[in-house]
Parts: sequence; C-alpha cells; structure tokens
Amino acid sequence: MKQGEQPIRGFKFSAVAAGIKKPGTTKLDFGLIVSEAPATIAGLTTTNLVFAAPVAITRERVTKGISRGVLVNSGNANAYTGEGGVRDALNLTREVAEALVIEADLIIPMSTGVIGNPLPVDRMRAAIPGLVRGLDPYRHMDVAHAMMTTDTRPKTVQLDGVASAGNFKMLGMCKGSGMIAPNMATMLAVILTDIKVEPSFLRECLIDANEASFNSVTVDGDTSTNDTVIVLSGGSPASIELGPTLADREAFRSVLNRACSDLARQIVLDGEGATKVVEIRVSGAPDSDAAFRVARTIAESPLVKTAFHGEDPNWGRIICAAGRAGVTFDPERIDLYIGDVPIVKNGLLVPEDWEPSAHKVMSSKEFTVVVDLKSGSAEALILTTDLSEEYVTINADYRS
Amino acid sequence: MKQGEQPIRGFKFSAVAAGIKKPGTTKLDFGLIVSEAPATIAGLTTTNLVFAAPVAITRERVTKGISRGVLVNSGNANAYTGEGGVRDALNLTREVAEALVIEADLIIPMSTGVIGNPLPVDRMRAAIPGLVRGLDPYRHMDVAHAMMTTDTRPKTVQLDGVASAGNFKMLGMCKGSGMIAPNMATMLAVILTDIKVEPSFLRECLIDANEASFNSVTVDGDTSTNDTVIVLSGGSPASIELGPTLADREAFRSVLNRACSDLARQIVLDGEGATKVVEIRVSGAPDSDAAFRVARTIAESPLVKTAFHGEDPNWGRIICAAGRAGVTFDPERIDLYIGDVPIVKNGLLVPEDWEPSAHKVMSSKEFTVVVDLKSGSAEALILTTDLSEEYVTINADYRS
Repeated sequence: MKQGEQPIRGFKFSAVAAGIKKPGTTKLDFGLIVSEAPATIAGLTTTNLVFAAPVAITRERVTKGISRGVLVNSGNANAYTGEGGVRDALNLTREVAEALVIEADLIIPMSTGVIGNPLPVDRMRAAIPGLVRGLDPYRHMDVAHAMMTTDTRPKTVQLDGVASAGNFKMLGMCKGSGMIAPNMATMLAVILTDIKVEPSFLRECLIDANEASFNSVTVDGDTSTNDTVIVLSGGSPASIELGPTLADREAFRSVLNRACSDLARQIVLDGEGATKVVEIRVSGAPDSDAAFRVARTIAESPLVKTAFHGEDPNWGRIICAAGRAGVTFDPERIDLYIGDVPIVKNGLLVPEDWEPSAHKVMSSKEFTVVVDLKSGSAEALILTTDLSEEYVTINADYRS
Repeated sequence: MKQGEQPIRGFKFSAVAAGIKKPGTTKLDFGLIVSEAPATIAGLTTTNLVFAAPVAITRERVTKGISRGVLVNSGNANAYTGEGGVRDALNLTREVAEALVIEADLIIPMSTGVIGNPLPVDRMRAAIPGLVRGLDPYRHMDVAHAMMTTDTRPKTVQLDGVASAGNFKMLGMCKGSGMIAPNMATMLAVILTDIKVEPSFLRECLIDANEASFNSVTVDGDTSTNDTVIVLSGGSPASIELGPTLADREAFRSVLNRACSDLARQIVLDGEGATKVVEIRVSGAPDSDAAFRVARTIAESPLVKTAFHGEDPNWGRIICAAGRAGVTFDPERIDLYIGDVPIVKNGLLVPEDWEPSAHKVMSSKEFTVVVDLKSGSAEALILTTDLSEEYVTINADYRS
C-alpha cells in the first residue's frame, strides 16, 4: 500500500485480546497507539472528585506537552484501586515504553470497565510483547474495538483540513454509550492529527471543542471516574507545522471541533435503550452558563425524557424544567418550539392546534426542542436521548 | 357525636365533584377547608421560576398572617394561564368568601392538575353553593380525596401534642406522587392545628419542618409550578394559645416536624412505578448544604436508582455520584454502607464477601444507604425511590 493511504501519517496501532475481564476470551481489550516521533499533546480528564489511577497519571503526563502514545484497556477501569492501581498503571506503561525504547512517562494510560477491582496485571504484562509486535499504521479500527465496553459499535471519525503548510488529516476514536453503562458511562477519546501544533494552542482548541461536544452531551447526567480526551499532534518526524496566522488557527480549530462533535453524536446515538436523539437549543439567555444550565436541566429531566420517549409534546414539563434551572428569566416572554412547530409564544400557548404537528415531529428519531428565553443573547445546545423502559432494564440488571 | 371526636377543633371541610377535568364525572375534585375564626397562617410555595396563578395569590395572602381557609381543586393546575388565570382564582376565592361572609383575601387558593388550560370557571362557580353548604367538621377525608391527581390513595396524618395551656391536635393532608405525575409532580399540603401560634414562629417552624421533610424527598428531581405547603393554626374562637416557653416551642416544633415527615414519606411510598423507598444518609460533610448536595446527587442519579431497582449493590455508581456533587471531600477516606453491611471503609473495598449480604438488604422494600465523607460533622437525609420500567411506561404515555 502507498503511504498516502494510511489513515493518519506518523501513528501506528495495535490491539490484542488480553483476557482482562475474563481469561481466554478473544475480544480485543488492550490497545496501543504509538507515534513515530514525539507528538505534542493536550488532554482533559473527568471533573469527578473520584478519579481513576490512569486519570491521575494522565493529568501529570499531559503537562509535559509531548507524548509518544496511548495504552488503553477495557474490561477494568482501574478506579478505586488505591495506590496499587497507580503502581499497576505506572508499571504497565513503563514496560510498554521499555519495549519501544522510549521514556516511560511518554505513554498515556487509559482504562475503562468495572471499578474497584485491581487490573489483572499478569495477563496484561504477558500481552505486551504481542501488542508492541502488532503495531501497524492500518490497525486503528482494532484499537477502536479494544476500547469498547457496552458500546454496540466502534466510533471513529476521519477529517481533512487545509493549513498554509499543506493539507492535514485528523483521526478520532472514542468509546462511550452513556445510557447503558452497566457500571459507569465512561467516555474515552483519542484524537490524532498529522499536523504539529504547539501544546498551548492545542489545549486551548481542545477545551473549546470539548465544551461544545463531549460536555454538551448528556444521557443520564453521570460523570465517570475515568472520562478522558486526548489529542496528539504531529506524530511523524516529517509532520508539517501549523502556522501562526489566524487562517491556520481557525482551520485547525474548526476541524477539531467537527471531530469532537461527530464523536459526541456517535456516543449519544449508541446509547442502548435510547430510541431518539433530541437536540435541546436554548437561546436568549443572559449568559452562556445560564443557557447551558437551562438546556442541561431540560435534557436531564426524567419527566421530559419519558415524554420524548412517548412522543408526547408535553411542553409543560419542558417549561417547568427550565423554571427550576436556577436561572433568572421572564417566563411570560419565552417562546417554545418542538421542531419548527411553535407551541408557546411570549409566554402563552399558541391558539392554533399545534398538538398533531408537534407529535409528528417527535415521532422521528431525531428532533430539536428550542426554548428562547428572550432575556439576553447567549445560547447553548445539548444533545440528549429519550428515557426508555429498556434503559431501566439494562441498568437494573444485576451484574453477573 | 361529641365535640371531642372532631378530627380537629375549629375547622370544617367539604368537597364536591365539580367536573373540573371533565363535566359529569363523580370524582371529588373541588374542596374547601374553613376555620370558624381567623386562624394564623404560614405558607411556603415552589421555588420554580415558573409558578401557577394560585401560587402568586397565595404568596401575597400568606403575608397577612391570618386566614380563614383553603379552596383547593384537582384536574387543572391553573398554571401558565396568564392574567386570566389570576383573575379566575381571585374570582373563585371571592365568591367562596362572599358565601361565607368573610373577606376575599382570607381564602387561600390551591390548584393541581394539567397545566396550560384555563380553569372551567363556570362549572366551578356552579359548584360553590354546594361546596359551602356541605361544610362539616368530619369531612376532612373528602378534601384529602378532592386534591388527589395521580395519587393512588389519600394521605393524611393526625398527631397530638402537649403544651402548657393544654393538649393540642394536628391534622395534615397532602397530595403528590412524584414518580408518576403525567403532567407534573405537584405537591400540595395543608396542615391544621387547634392551638394558636403567632405567624412568625409558625413560619419559622414550617421552614425547618419543610426542609427536613418535603424538601428531603426526591423522586425525579422535578419541582412543580404549584408546590405549596400551608399551616393554619387555632381555627376556633376558643383555641388555646402556644406559650412563649422553650418547652412549648419545642413541643409544637416537634409535632409539626413529625406531621411533615409522615406526609412526605407517604408521598414517596405512593410513587407509582416505585417499588422501593431508599433512605440516603450522608454524614461527615463539611456543612449541611454539602451533605444535602451529595445526598441529592446520589438520590437522583438514574444509574443509582436503576441499581436499586435491580437490587444490585453497585457501590461504584453511588461513589461516582457522590464525586460529581460539586462538594470537596477526600474519596480515599469515605465509608459506604448498604443497610448495616460495610462495603467501603477508608476509601477501600472491604476484604470480606459483602455482596450477598448487601444484595439481601436491597431485596427488601425499604433500606438505607449510608455514606460517611469523614470531612466534617454535617449530615443530610433524603428519601428516594428506585427507577423502574413502570415509571417510564407511565410517564411516556401519550396524554389522551
């Protein structure tokens, strides 16, 4: 194959079935991504006060600004495992680094799966030689598979961008399926790009992209102990560099935003038990924090989410949720739309018979709810799902 | 019958089927409580920014400190009904007051039911003469029935207390069934006592009692447009008065606390779709707001609530919810119990096989989860329910 056909120049991928959850299974559960040359890195981790051992290590390693790759496993979150958990993650990344003949702290550890159990370190160590041997520029889908837990499908995105130094590519992969998560709705994402971006700007872009994507997706409001998003840029010694011009900056920012939004939407779409994806748009808020709070309160209300499931245009639940978001607005002025069907205008129910058309909008798999608070100019958008009986069934299943 | 057998001296009750939801039905939906003499009053209403017409009127009338009674209807919340809704509630309470030959602003209006529709004022006016005629000291259960919406049973409590001036009684009634609420989980409560208490102390006691009862119950986190709690004290010209001593104050406070807690527990127990009532106790918090936030975040987490439903001692979900409550504590120090079974001690899973015993605790209809943050001495207790498939089914039903 020609070099140009590689999914992303400068990075290699590998994955094996290490039997992390249960010995002897053939499901890929241990993955490795390695850059050919030092890449710059930016990363964000969970805001949960309770965070996993790999998160503690990642937080420290990201501050170096450079990295050589990611070691990821599913089947065990290495969370709530105390000092032993940190030691295990340090040892595993060190062994991988030794096999690659690089510094240990250049490998970022990521874990997802059940919490409270120590990693099966012996099985994982035994798998490292095969993992390193298997590195290949074309095996990115294997890594996307190896990070899956209750996901029903791997989630990747590939995008192209144009900078002054030339064209660049971006490859993202993530796992997360919010609504099902038998133990926790962990979200892990790795985004790779073959253009070199200095760490400070990379971080700035990632914070913004994350806000508008992964942080704007809610399925059940639970933030996990392991949530991590990492961007690695410029993995090849021959990588082009992002220029300092506004045009270059915006070109990169826009591709990263699109990659994160695409992955976030895939997470929502993969929520088992979810039969609908609903976009909650709140406009006219006094500031963007207020807009976000109103959108999130609507998006997480069980009464609103069950109404979505029943395709019931129960606008009262939506307005009631907005009213308890802790944001000041004038309820007598607001407009509410389901899809393009106006239901409330200036705080009053519209006189027309909106119900059949609103119900029709809600009968599709994706629709939008728009609330205009008319109390400012800030906006927010959150993707959510309906709340189905299946969500309960899946999550109430006794672990066995 | 003898005077002493009255449920509560100084108050009369009446209820009729006014056909508020649908003309011609025989379900009681319009109730009246009247005191024989001016009673003192304290009241609390919803914190939702969007509040119903009767709430607006109640807020103003409560400030007078005296009242002659409550006019309550189910079937229509008179919420999101604009100026017309306020006018309707004013007119209805004025007509009742005229029939009773008292001032209009001494009657407190309360409504619960669907929102966005104007009250069927003509049918309600036509029912007023019968409502007033029916007043009787023994018909309190009829009023408790008339305020029911999706409640499966009326909820009342009767308690006795002893003050220096003599024995006193308290009669409370409420409606609310959180988890089902096809339109909204409105909570209405009226508490009557035959001992006269000055309005300022009555309000102080009500605020405290409400905090530890109605505000410590969560079923789906939704706060309605109509939530109202009212206390009327000393309805008879012959009412004894609460004395100024600490003993009298504490006696009254304690009976009011018990009345509110008993009613709040009845609301949780009546949540359709709820198969379990779970007490979340958080101790060792830096302050009581922090304790309450942690307890509430656990109590409202869909992942925790579905685990309760599945009788799955999934402690990871509980700790994860605690961690995202926005409260600072040291996760490495906390203790977690399900019932009396220790699961986490000092931030580590206990070595014993706790799972069968924890599962056994969860298989009963009521159990307790205890989280000790060991970061202070404040505590909070919240009652919650499990999240069942039936909750979704009921709430997803298209209104018809």
